[in-house]
Amino acid sequence: MKLNIAVLPGDGIGPEVTKQAKKVLEAVAHQFNHTFIFKEALVGAVAIDKTGEPFPQETMDLCLKTDAVLFGAIGDPKYDNDPSAKVRPEQGLLKMRKDLGLFTNIRPVKAFEQLLDKSPLKKEIIKGADLTIYRELTGGIYFGEKKISKDGKTASDLGEYSAYEIERIAHAAFKAAQVRRKKLTLVDKANVLESSRLWRKVVTEIAKEYKDVELHYLFVDNAAMQMILNPTQFDVILTDNLFGDIISDEASVIGGSIGLLASASIGEKHAVFEPIHGSYPQATGKGIANPIASILSAAMLLEHFGLNEEAAVIHKAVDKSLELKISTPDILPDSKITTSKVGDFIADYIHYPE
Amino acid sequence: MKLNIAVLPGDGIGPEVTKQAKKVLEAVAHQFNHTFIFKEALVGAVAIDKTGEPFPQETMDLCLKTDAVLFGAIGDPKYDNDPSAKVRPEQGLLKMRKDLGLFTNIRPVKAFEQLLDKSPLKKEIIKGADLTIYRELTGGIYFGEKKISKDGKTASDLGEYSAYEIERIAHAAFKAAQVRRKKLTLVDKANVLESSRLWRKVVTEIAKEYKDVELHYLFVDNAAMQMILNPTQFDVILTDNLFGDIISDEASVIGGSIGLLASASIGEKHAVFEPIHGSYPQATGKGIANPIASILSAAMLLEHFGLNEEAAVIHKAVDKSLELKISTPDILPDSKITTSKVGDFIADYIHYPE
Ligand SMILES: [Mg+2]
Ligand SMILES: [Mg+2]
Repeated sequence: MKLNIAVLPGDGIGPEVTKQAKKVLEAVAHQFNHTFIFKEALVGAVAIDKTGEPFPQETMDLCLKTDAVLFGAIGDPKYDNDPSAKVRPEQGLLKMRKDLGLFTNIRPVKAFEQLLDKSPLKKEIIKGADLTIYRELTGGIYFGEKKISKDGKTASDLGEYSAYEIERIAHAAFKAAQVRRKKLTLVDKANVLESSRLWRKVVTEIAKEYKDVELHYLFVDNAAMQMILNPTQFDVILTDNLFGDIISDEASVIGGSIGLLASASIGEKHAVFEPIHGSYPQATGKGIANPIASILSAAMLLEHFGLNEEAAVIHKAVDKSLELKISTPDILPDSKITTSKVGDFIADYIHYPE
Repeated sequence: MKLNIAVLPGDGIGPEVTKQAKKVLEAVAHQFNHTFIFKEALVGAVAIDKTGEPFPQETMDLCLKTDAVLFGAIGDPKYDNDPSAKVRPEQGLLKMRKDLGLFTNIRPVKAFEQLLDKSPLKKEIIKGADLTIYRELTGGIYFGEKKISKDGKTASDLGEYSAYEIERIAHAAFKAAQVRRKKLTLVDKANVLESSRLWRKVVTEIAKEYKDVELHYLFVDNAAMQMILNPTQFDVILTDNLFGDIISDEASVIGGSIGLLASASIGEKHAVFEPIHGSYPQATGKGIANPIASILSAAMLLEHFGLNEEAAVIHKAVDKSLELKISTPDILPDSKITTSKVGDFIADYIHYPE
């Protein structure tokens, strides 16, 4: 397969980790006879510094004409600490999501066997957890009409959804469940919210097309409890923008290894793959950043194009690196193994499996 | 002090646990020379069975003319499993909150030293956690305008707050922080929501009147993570209705002992005190229900009227019962100690401390 991949390294540790993901994709291309063509572009603070824009037109053009985007991270303290800054790196991310129409955010959470001790939860609670969250990313109350009264004493946000917005992500989530453990949990607040009742109606209807998938309903407050009490009960979680924001961030910490979590944001025509960790400016250039989240984002990219065998090879190599403790200090204190050494090991393992 | 207390035992284990709370309040009255006058009334399924209404006028009248309400629990499977039921026990709770104007919900969460092993979180994470959540209870998106389009294809909910609604609960939360560890964390989503920005503006302004309290801001998605990663960082959390629903339920499971969690719902003139656990029908009449949440709700009632020394005595007696393992089987498997034996021990300890 031939794939054109835009690489947007961004700020902080973004470039270091993305470089390892690219290295791993090159190993996959070599082993499986694919052609991956990488083109780099600017985003975030580094883009503001060079062009004045966090998501320049040139970057947008590249993203529009490539098959997928491999994204690093954005954010720089010099903008965070300057309240007068008119342009902020984060705007680049929001603009990209909007312009590329990325309405589905996918966040897998897995308890890595080798890292069970890292979790704030007890080993026996987290062991075996393997879930993925489908969060609607371009609708709901985050994008609804905002009002503030003239006297500034009343403010409101409108949480609105259309059946169409729900349908398109629901199909994606059911399809994901079909190739996983065939369980889908819709998280909403249908006992109170009208928009949640629409979610429930639409998703219940669509479920008829996926008879092999078991559909469950869970109120969001209960979901926030169940994520802690019994995360292994979940397979695919489907939810709206606001609830997805809260539940996916909650879920991200139960595994105890935020440096290992990948994500995908997918639209009709475009798709972006990125680690969930940020630009982590304090670690920049020290070789201590964990590249695994970025590498697993590359695996999600391959899965998106049906290259499941290739993705599985990356997962196997990552597991092996953890097993052999070829790890950065975030998960192995006092480790002297650098970001690029982890990338080298994983790429080498793909080239020459045992 | 003379207090008129309405007792609404409700359904399931409600009557059993409320009886113990009353027993403990009677012990306090005796020891401290107070006069507590108890009057019982119907609520929930038992009220529907006898009057056709989940919150009959007679119960309402009693609540309106008493100083405080001691509430048990409501809910009965015979209504849950009957989709054609026009009247439901839960409506009694909502009607009561609304009619009594209970706009502040208070949910303390404490990691009991004797029960640290019960938590799904690791001991070292939960040890020392002692926080209380102030959730706005009668505003926001749960009560905002709901719309569904004629074709049923679009649905919306309006999340609205006025400065007045925020001010009244903010003062209560700051006052609570003053007599605790003097830290208040406002949980919102001010980077996205207009109503959250109003919360932030109003609370920041009110903070000037409470200079001894440190004010922190936390986005709700980050709060959902921090509650797991480091719950001991929190003292008082202040938040809106929706975020409070999610965060307080999440927080309720970190202590590992839902049978011990009390709550208060407070308005300008009225106040209701109740365990957070439900009616737990399967346990009804077996003597296995844990009465501590109800007993600690009685302690919150006393604190509400400034009877802090009296409340402290209840807390001490509860701690002693846990220490001596005078506990029901939910926290001490194989225990043969009944609901009323736990109540007896706590009441006796108040009468005759060591
Ligand atoms: Mg988030
Ligand atoms: Mg709740």
